[in-house]
Amino acid sequence: MASIEKVSSNRVSSGYLTKYKFPSKSLGGLSTQFNVFLPSAASSSSPVPVLFYLAGLTCNEDTGAQKGGMLNKAGEEGIAIVFPDTSPRGAGVEGEEDDWQLGTGAGFYLNATADKWKKHYNMYDLVVEELPSALKKADLGLDFSRWSITGHSMGGHGALSIYLKNPGLFKSASAFSPAANPSRTPWGINAFTNYLDAKTRSSPPSEWLQYDSSHLLQSFSEEAHILVDVGTEDDFLKKGQLEPKSLEAVGKEGVEVRMQDGFDHSYYFISTFAPEHIAFHAKHLKA
Amino acid sequence: MASIEKVSSNRVSSGYLTKYKFPSKSLGGLSTQFNVFLPSAASSSSPVPVLFYLAGLTCNEDTGAQKGGMLNKAGEEGIAIVFPDTSPRGAGVEGEEDDWQLGTGAGFYLNATADKWKKHYNMYDLVVEELPSALKKADLGLDFSRWSITGHSMGGHGALSIYLKNPGLFKSASAFSPAANPSRTPWGINAFTNYLDAKTRSSPPSEWLQYDSSHLLQSFSEEAHILVDVGTEDDFLKKGQLEPKSLEAVGKEGVEVRMQDGFDHSYYFISTFAPEHIAFHAKHLKA
Repeated sequence: MASIEKVSSNRVSSGYLTKYKFPSKSLGGLSTQFNVFLPSAASSSSPVPVLFYLAGLTCNEDTGAQKGGMLNKAGEEGIAIVFPDTSPRGAGVEGEEDDWQLGTGAGFYLNATADKWKKHYNMYDLVVEELPSALKKADLGLDFSRWSITGHSMGGHGALSIYLKNPGLFKSASAFSPAANPSRTPWGINAFTNYLDAKTRSSPPSEWLQYDSSHLLQSFSEEAHILVDVGTEDDFLKKGQLEPKSLEAVGKEGVEVRMQDGFDHSYYFISTFAPEHIAFHAKHLKA
Repeated sequence: MASIEKVSSNRVSSGYLTKYKFPSKSLGGLSTQFNVFLPSAASSSSPVPVLFYLAGLTCNEDTGAQKGGMLNKAGEEGIAIVFPDTSPRGAGVEGEEDDWQLGTGAGFYLNATADKWKKHYNMYDLVVEELPSALKKADLGLDFSRWSITGHSMGGHGALSIYLKNPGLFKSASAFSPAANPSRTPWGINAFTNYLDAKTRSSPPSEWLQYDSSHLLQSFSEEAHILVDVGTEDDFLKKGQLEPKSLEAVGKEGVEVRMQDGFDHSYYFISTFAPEHIAFHAKHLKA
């Protein structure tokens, strides 16, 4: 496995935010970048819990680190945060740069099966397997036996679906404004239609449902630890892109969906509630 | 006087961040934008204290609002924050876009006297007089009898020099990584040489010294309430652009300069200490 290589580092909160890169097998060999916030107290002999933050459409590994307002609280709680990118960069797939909802900046945290995309667009494998393996190998002081996941919008979809597809792997999941029922909403339908080679004739196809949090939650047999915040003035909520009610409709215990009065889809919303999400994860990571 | 016009608004923290624009007389009639964070409790019958945040080179009215990490603490303390732009936009002065240290994004919070710049480059008047007047007229619930000022880098220079030039106008000033002795350091020398028509033969000219915080502090006769943070790994500190020691050398009480180990010049540094700066200003604004 390729080793991670340091790109830059900034002192922040009670630690450092370090940007790394490595050639990713999941992304067809393309170099991918990510940021790691590591509290100074972390070491290989005293590793700290890990939170992954998955960003939304058009964003990259810097967006959550710069605008998310998460780092001071994470430093206080002694939790590391890993910020992956949102897609491969420079795959050279035709049309990749033409639509902000598909291709670059829009990996949707799935493994593509359609011929056109499947060589590079495997953000699911990157986030769930390859990146954790590379980080374990680097021995930075991250304890992946205490691992949680959060994200925003497309990244909220990523966080919830990855949590639900891997029972026991994560202590908790949370999301800001997630696309919570993507097999039935426009962003998801567009992404799944393009990325996934659906052979089943059901509607939606089962190949789509394996990445749909509202569907996955129905058969999630573990105790759930899920927190979701959505702003009532979120334009994408109004346009039917998010559908957080479909999560609630499952009626599963341990799933809290909070509608936050007057908030929109922006990082101003995220930064307002980020400390509460960090505290939620800290409770489960340090239980 | 022209009225301010709302451009956009985002719910954040315990209030709203609203972007406004208005045609500025100080900027030769050009439209200028600024953001106002207003806690929800603020009203014309119950106005709240005001903090101005002046951003640095290449930044604009959004940078501090998005990356500064100030809004949650300001909301908790019930303090408004006003984020002006860093220069006129589109003045059309020759060379204005050629150098990131001069012209657009680099107004240096002064009133230009050189022929080439003096029509538009009067950020000092905008910040000290015109913007407060426009905000008072708009009756948003800001109490300018309780007013403090902070900033970063070029904006740290702006905050300190504006505080020191106007005894009694502000309750407190703070700065992150300020250009604290600009009449003797490269950014300042470049800006003052271009913007100011210096007729005196002293070195530095008196026209420059009126914008130099380390000089102004020497004759500041009021009780000072100044907090300055600078990172020890700040490249611009190492390059001699900041010179915070020149502030300390004045030996004035009430001026605290803290060197923060390992931090650099970025917003990661600002966001780490922003809550402490808000608390510092809150103490003086609500005394």
